[in-house]
Amino acid sequence: MKKHICALAVLSGLSFSAMALDCDPSLLPSWKDGASKTAIVNYVDQSLDTTKSTFIPEQDRIAVFDNDGTLWSEKPFYFQLAYALDEVKIMAKDHPEWKTQEPFKSVLNDDIEGVFKGGEKALLEIVKVTHSGMTVEEYQEKVAQWLKAAKDPRFGKAYTELTYKPMREMVTYLQEHGFKTYIVSGGGVDFMRVWAPEVYGIPEEQIIGSALKYKYDYNDGKPTVTKLGEILTIDDKAGKVENIQHIIGKKPVLAIGNSDGDHAMMQWATSQPNSMAMIVHHTDEDREWKYDRKSSVGHLDKAMDEANQRDNWHLIDMKNEWCTVY
Amino acid sequence: MKKHICALAVLSGLSFSAMALDCDPSLLPSWKDGASKTAIVNYVDQSLDTTKSTFIPEQDRIAVFDNDGTLWSEKPFYFQLAYALDEVKIMAKDHPEWKTQEPFKSVLNDDIEGVFKGGEKALLEIVKVTHSGMTVEEYQEKVAQWLKAAKDPRFGKAYTELTYKPMREMVTYLQEHGFKTYIVSGGGVDFMRVWAPEVYGIPEEQIIGSALKYKYDYNDGKPTVTKLGEILTIDDKAGKVENIQHIIGKKPVLAIGNSDGDHAMMQWATSQPNSMAMIVHHTDEDREWKYDRKSSVGHLDKAMDEANQRDNWHLIDMKNEWCTVY
Repeated sequence: MKKHICALAVLSGLSFSAMALDCDPSLLPSWKDGASKTAIVNYVDQSLDTTKSTFIPEQDRIAVFDNDGTLWSEKPFYFQLAYALDEVKIMAKDHPEWKTQEPFKSVLNDDIEGVFKGGEKALLEIVKVTHSGMTVEEYQEKVAQWLKAAKDPRFGKAYTELTYKPMREMVTYLQEHGFKTYIVSGGGVDFMRVWAPEVYGIPEEQIIGSALKYKYDYNDGKPTVTKLGEILTIDDKAGKVENIQHIIGKKPVLAIGNSDGDHAMMQWATSQPNSMAMIVHHTDEDREWKYDRKSSVGHLDKAMDEANQRDNWHLIDMKNEWCTVY
Repeated sequence: MKKHICALAVLSGLSFSAMALDCDPSLLPSWKDGASKTAIVNYVDQSLDTTKSTFIPEQDRIAVFDNDGTLWSEKPFYFQLAYALDEVKIMAKDHPEWKTQEPFKSVLNDDIEGVFKGGEKALLEIVKVTHSGMTVEEYQEKVAQWLKAAKDPRFGKAYTELTYKPMREMVTYLQEHGFKTYIVSGGGVDFMRVWAPEVYGIPEEQIIGSALKYKYDYNDGKPTVTKLGEILTIDDKAGKVENIQHIIGKKPVLAIGNSDGDHAMMQWATSQPNSMAMIVHHTDEDREWKYDRKSSVGHLDKAMDEANQRDNWHLIDMKNEWCTVY
């Protein structure tokens, strides 16, 4: 990250009307005219300039975005987990044994701390029972119905209203300049494909995520694909790079994340010329959330250290660089 | 397949000049004006006609092509296996034990029948030792070098010269009409990505295939992705559908294959309105190869039966419908 002390930092304490002056409605309107916006615009400009060594042919203009905490909020816990917890409660009538069996007992008692005490194993168990044993279509229909009704506990908004407007603008801006934008998220790929294509303008086939194994059956002329209760891939940390290699087959030039789960992906992308990494830094406790090194969800520590040392890694200061969050 | 006895069948015995009359240079020039060409053109026309119920929105115009035997030849055996056999011979100097150890012994003795006697297990062992233990980049560089030198035993041509001109034209024709074309092949995804983007105009990220597991390492600032000696996915039969679900996330409207290995993919694609399946039928022993029900490589039996029963499944008669093969 460049060490400029930009005008924005000075302005950040000023009134809304003064802040609004920094937001240019004609270009990335939800971004203040600061270091991050400049980095995005300059990066795109230099990628398109065929007269310079920084030019990137269109087929190599691959940008990968994490989702949770990068394109939408992830607090108080991942929204997909909120779905799974709600599903456990619906399914509980067929599972009387869950009343005394962890991690389900904690879910049914609304004891989210108790759920987290079980660690990754407990979370995976909850995801497996709520995300498998049905076709992909059936699962996605349930998610779609849930999204219509569910509200996040803090803002009282639908979860799909908690995507970041500046990041949606950035996705569109890149697309308009010939970048192929991908989501590469620890979230479930089938979960994201329900709503992300419409909300971000990123098609199903450019969404990579964690997945359970799939099973095809022909059923006498009615083919189905069922979600099994076994992990196919966990799309996090090194797994993000491995999935990008497998599914995209080339190294992205631009990687955007918000946590150490994106660190490998950012290191891999920026191990080549004309590349860039950006990190959404959650600095805004009023409009969104404030967390980094000490948070378990969205833990940002080593990647932030690296951003502070590398010129082509940029921390996006949500509080001071975004005119609007949602 | 429609049961028309078309003029082409009558013409097929005529001289080259007479045959050439059937080939319209302005539209899919390597296809005679017969049932398959008509099916392709009609299908594209009806998919684009916004006034009809057959219209397909652009984001759903997904076409999946098998590769071996569908886009290029696969006889006398898969070209990727030819690479693996050549690699075994190169690697043998570091493996004196292979002289007496199957399936390597048969490879070193040029006894291809002996190799095949070991079945799928033997082939997988050969693929694993020749395709793993190196980075993806290193592997792809080796494949690229091999492709420059290797010639197929029958025609004496480079393998990349043995792609089907009519099918390359079909891929381009679909792309020009807003179809997103994918390869979905039992062949190795890293192998295909070396040459298929240039030869077919299908980018790396639209190539799906079999794969070994990948492993990311950071190596103090020099990130690498290594190919491990374990199967990640076998992209054949039901596996093709499962991989399409995982990677593309929607059901293709058009599926083109040549063997029972593509049957599931074709059944799945055509389990919806406005869909079509096509099968390259190897009927031309003079210009290419002739095989179907009795062949182990490119075994075509049940899918051919289904093509004969369904109106939107079409057999492409290579001998009588293609003006040019390569």
